[in-house]
Amino acid sequence: MWYKSNGKDGDIVISSRIRLARNLKEFRFCGKMTADEANAIIEKTKNALDGRKFKFINLSNMDKTDKLLMLEQHLISRELAESRLPSGVFTDKDNEISVMVNEEDHIRMQCITGGYDLDGAYEKLNALDTSLEEKLDFAFDENYGYLTKCPTNTGTGMRASVMLHLPGLAITGNINNVIAAVNKLGIAVRGLYGEGSKSAACIYQVSNQVTLGITEEETLENLKNVVDMLIEKERQVTKALYDNNPLQFKDKVGRAYATLAGAYIMTNDEFMKLIPYVRMGVNMGIIDGVDSAAINSLIIELSPAHVSKLMGASNAAQRDEKRASKLREVLGKEEK
Amino acid sequence: MWYKSNGKDGDIVISSRIRLARNLKEFRFCGKMTADEANAIIEKTKNALDGRKFKFINLSNMDKTDKLLMLEQHLISRELAESRLPSGVFTDKDNEISVMVNEEDHIRMQCITGGYDLDGAYEKLNALDTSLEEKLDFAFDENYGYLTKCPTNTGTGMRASVMLHLPGLAITGNINNVIAAVNKLGIAVRGLYGEGSKSAACIYQVSNQVTLGITEEETLENLKNVVDMLIEKERQVTKALYDNNPLQFKDKVGRAYATLAGAYIMTNDEFMKLIPYVRMGVNMGIIDGVDSAAINSLIIELSPAHVSKLMGASNAAQRDEKRASKLREVLGKEEK
Repeated sequence: MWYKSNGKDGDIVISSRIRLARNLKEFRFCGKMTADEANAIIEKTKNALDGRKFKFINLSNMDKTDKLLMLEQHLISRELAESRLPSGVFTDKDNEISVMVNEEDHIRMQCITGGYDLDGAYEKLNALDTSLEEKLDFAFDENYGYLTKCPTNTGTGMRASVMLHLPGLAITGNINNVIAAVNKLGIAVRGLYGEGSKSAACIYQVSNQVTLGITEEETLENLKNVVDMLIEKERQVTKALYDNNPLQFKDKVGRAYATLAGAYIMTNDEFMKLIPYVRMGVNMGIIDGVDSAAINSLIIELSPAHVSKLMGASNAAQRDEKRASKLREVLGKEEK
Repeated sequence: MWYKSNGKDGDIVISSRIRLARNLKEFRFCGKMTADEANAIIEKTKNALDGRKFKFINLSNMDKTDKLLMLEQHLISRELAESRLPSGVFTDKDNEISVMVNEEDHIRMQCITGGYDLDGAYEKLNALDTSLEEKLDFAFDENYGYLTKCPTNTGTGMRASVMLHLPGLAITGNINNVIAAVNKLGIAVRGLYGEGSKSAACIYQVSNQVTLGITEEETLENLKNVVDMLIEKERQVTKALYDNNPLQFKDKVGRAYATLAGAYIMTNDEFMKLIPYVRMGVNMGIIDGVDSAAINSLIIELSPAHVSKLMGASNAAQRDEKRASKLREVLGKEEK
């Protein structure tokens, strides 16, 4: 799983993701088509992917918790989870590449990697795109580029995004100015689960807004410039926060870590509030024995659907107990 | 030191103490006498103690912090610390027995032991009293017994007291009913530093109120009956608190312990608020690796004057830092 290893700049960058939106020329866009057409698109995509090791997950007869689980792993979008048409997702064995069928567009393929590696993710996804294009007839216009249901994706059809943990900027309140400045550069900043979601645990998704009249390479360069700046600013702000009052900083970090490692009941809200301090503590060398990848894993694996499904909790009280138990195990070094 | 070892019923009883008030017949009571008389009493007491290994500590030229230090160790009373007459205290090498001179009475001798051992403390102090009586002429009346400055001590001149940690009774609010019931039996319940002090950290001093028309043995029996009952009630209440909601109980204990072990800034108030949960956690087997004696030591050694003097902290902020540092060392098993 992408979130289980520490990538480049893993102290701040949780993951890098490229998504390409494609539509099949011979079908109407998703909003207009019938269930039969939707099934035909799934079939065509499956055939085009043949030879590659993809597993198909049919979302039409999947229960809500399982869908949430995939959402929390960023394998599917909220839109796909809520789709009423026959739809599904093809995933490779590491869940690094996934191909959603019948979300907003006929095909939305994505590659997600741990840490800061937009180029690596683009390279892998581009190879898949090229191979699919040999077998499928994508809707493409000489002037506009790839055609998409929503005009905001027309052109490259690409969204490149980086998931950043920015506790320093969030806690000091600097994040709002930073978001405003970044927006002016054509870069969007969203919460943990993409468009319309709120930021939780000081996690932000930073992505390109423009897809028309720009190449994929330019898009990546623009985004990387902004992400480089955000990484730099986050490190500066965290260091300044520490330097301003090292004891108080260590006290907040120490208490957050101790509470997470020592509690027997832990709500998702409290977890999301405390974990950013642990990240800062790890980055500033105050906390040993836990690395950034472990924190990333906790953020994913302690999300409500994960706790419900993987730890067998059927209500909020049980989830809070299981979440605390997992935290004591991982952070408190408690015997299993 | 009495508080460094685990005595009988050490899960609840911190210490047992006997105090005897005596006055020298040929001198006026403390309120009326001159500095010369006060010095003469010190001299006479010193001669009477000769042959026993006592160290004399002159309080007249001792600074305030050192006095507070002895107060926090229960070696002297607040009244002696504030005395304007020449005064002092003789202590044996373990600080088990101390003889205050020119407190409210000319001589106030006490024996303090760890755990629940009123008989042992009485035996040792009675031996000292007998030996002093051979050399000093105590004010004694055939009808009233030993004469004291305040009539409430006349008779045996004895106060037997037990210091109890009663977090279960305190947290559930049952303590108020218990105190009211116990008062009717002629037993007083006071805070950590004796008369007029507030209860801190759920610690209570339970002692006899009556000294007139009663023997020392009867006094001890009465007190022991009450203490036995309090120990029993505290264990019951703590167990009921746990049984009512084990997870919530463990959560409170786990968070209190984790916060004490993980913070970098710890005020005395917060420490006093959290440590009772740790005691309950140790007693209920939720916390390993810390015993009751270690908690008793922390309660004494993290008192403000102790932290100031022994850890070299000169203001409240430094004390809060040193206190947290000591807690991380003892509870967090942090490297020194």
